[in-house]
Amino acid sequence: MSDKIPNLEGPVCSLPIKHKDTIVIGHGSGGKMMADLIKDIFYPPLANPALLAGNDSGVVQLTDEIKLAVSTDAHVVSPLFFPGGDIGKLAVCGTVNDLAMVGAKPLYLSASFILEEGLEISILESVVQSIKNAAEEADIDIICGDTKVVAHGEADGLYISTTGVGIVDPKLTIAGSEAKPGDQVIVSGTIGDHGIAVLEARGDLGFHTSLESDTAPLNHLVSEMLAVSDQVHVLRDPTRGGVATALNEIAKQSGVGIILYENKLPIHPEVAAVCEMLGFDPLYIANEGKLLAVVGSEDTDKLLQVMQKNKYGENAAIIGVVKGSPSGRLLMSTGLGSSRIVDVLAGEMLPRIC
Amino acid sequence: MSDKIPNLEGPVCSLPIKHKDTIVIGHGSGGKMMADLIKDIFYPPLANPALLAGNDSGVVQLTDEIKLAVSTDAHVVSPLFFPGGDIGKLAVCGTVNDLAMVGAKPLYLSASFILEEGLEISILESVVQSIKNAAEEADIDIICGDTKVVAHGEADGLYISTTGVGIVDPKLTIAGSEAKPGDQVIVSGTIGDHGIAVLEARGDLGFHTSLESDTAPLNHLVSEMLAVSDQVHVLRDPTRGGVATALNEIAKQSGVGIILYENKLPIHPEVAAVCEMLGFDPLYIANEGKLLAVVGSEDTDKLLQVMQKNKYGENAAIIGVVKGSPSGRLLMSTGLGSSRIVDVLAGEMLPRIC
Repeated sequence: MSDKIPNLEGPVCSLPIKHKDTIVIGHGSGGKMMADLIKDIFYPPLANPALLAGNDSGVVQLTDEIKLAVSTDAHVVSPLFFPGGDIGKLAVCGTVNDLAMVGAKPLYLSASFILEEGLEISILESVVQSIKNAAEEADIDIICGDTKVVAHGEADGLYISTTGVGIVDPKLTIAGSEAKPGDQVIVSGTIGDHGIAVLEARGDLGFHTSLESDTAPLNHLVSEMLAVSDQVHVLRDPTRGGVATALNEIAKQSGVGIILYENKLPIHPEVAAVCEMLGFDPLYIANEGKLLAVVGSEDTDKLLQVMQKNKYGENAAIIGVVKGSPSGRLLMSTGLGSSRIVDVLAGEMLPRIC
Repeated sequence: MSDKIPNLEGPVCSLPIKHKDTIVIGHGSGGKMMADLIKDIFYPPLANPALLAGNDSGVVQLTDEIKLAVSTDAHVVSPLFFPGGDIGKLAVCGTVNDLAMVGAKPLYLSASFILEEGLEISILESVVQSIKNAAEEADIDIICGDTKVVAHGEADGLYISTTGVGIVDPKLTIAGSEAKPGDQVIVSGTIGDHGIAVLEARGDLGFHTSLESDTAPLNHLVSEMLAVSDQVHVLRDPTRGGVATALNEIAKQSGVGIILYENKLPIHPEVAAVCEMLGFDPLYIANEGKLLAVVGSEDTDKLLQVMQKNKYGENAAIIGVVKGSPSGRLLMSTGLGSSRIVDVLAGEMLPRIC
């Protein structure tokens, strides 16, 4: 990495947030606007340690012996079906992965449906079948559900909220605050596939790619990693806001600097091509079957080997390193001796991506 | 009660379900159409014992010692604010109550929000404050959340899905299947208040009443009941579909007949007046702060005393009795020596009531 760290005074890449008085699409971005909404509106009244920890799941001590993890996600992806998945598969995998990212073994899932009047029942049947298939692969039971129907024009086909419950090995303390200087950053595979696949399914590209969403349950991959190493400090699935947002969060939670190696990022050539054409940065594009792991450097090789044997970790690669400073910052080392700050986005690049 | 039981051959009050190929408002009713949707579309692929039990919460054995209850609800009530509550209070109480109805002590809640672009942030703030207040009263922490934003016209302001997690005393087996001949049926207070209060808030009545929704967390009431009696066999909160639907479900799950005493039903005079004017039956109107308890007759008096001391059980009353037959049926004893079948509704009387 380079020593040429830019001047960090003042806000960086912080676009002014307009319309503070009403919700705008950017508030659902996974970026700075959403973080502000959570910090200003949700946290002050609802504060408790599990919520404020800001991890993918709330983790609580159920009994002296049992640590429980709970995670929830609303799924509003458009369109409902896309190459590589659909809203049902996404709803299961998104929540299973959030549990796995705190080291929890996912056990049970709830699913609540908001259906728009006029939705074809055959569509609902397909989605429920996808839920079944994904739940089977993740080895999790859907033990309760709810269904509400709203009038035509009060939803867009079908929304699904899933909540997962899992158990965390009490010896584990995997959390965004656990990254340490010297740790290495691993990504489990190519980045941006989900976002671009959904974009294509919307017909917004104007041409066809062979891309598929990476939507997948990562809990088995995580348990294989944890079986060989006790040096997994942070796990996070880079969904909305992509790798850049997830690593920024970790840098802030741990009070460390994270340096990314630009030339080490695994990116599918078609994702790279689409991004270049449309002016997107794959670092900000959503993934639904990838994880970031911040691990003690002594175990990196062992973990990579295990990951690459799993079909969801075939292209796992070391993409960065953790430094003591600049605290709370993500930097990109360009390989040419220079580096630049990679901030979170203010607003929204691709709405309704998950 | 009367012996004059009507002929039960063939379907009773089963209106033909049209539009089988698309979702209609009636599929969210809590009535027969919703039951069919769940039975035909959700149960076959997702079947597991906790789901198929059909109780207000899924109950699972987490460890040898710990029984966990999980419950979920999507909340789409319109309007967002109504006399006696709002969507935030409703979202907490609805899920807390579903946990309490299997005898669980509610511990943790997740909340996922679907926000419509253009929603005033001050509205969101009020709703989150209500969530805080209700969670405090119920003594439950919100430990994880999610926020999605959809474009204007893809939701109606704000939807909230909540999922609750609680622990069930392993000695308890409170479930819809536990009603026994000779048991008595208690309701904790006046019925139909929530539905009529929301209807008035919509401006649909054309006149004003003093009615307020009964939205309230019932977990403390339930724990007081369980502290004095081990004869609480079934608990259920009669939300969508009202008392008639809840008791029909219990009759079917337990394979018993339930007889209601028409002149014992506690009904607020204004609810009775509105229902008579509009042709509604209060037995089918939603409640959000009432419970039905099917209890061993030896403990009825003791339970009534305890309930009537709690502000949410002041008007508790015995409203019916369980018989060995007709299996799966709810009957109304009119007090004039005759009785009639009270079936579940096919479709929807008041959409988006919760």
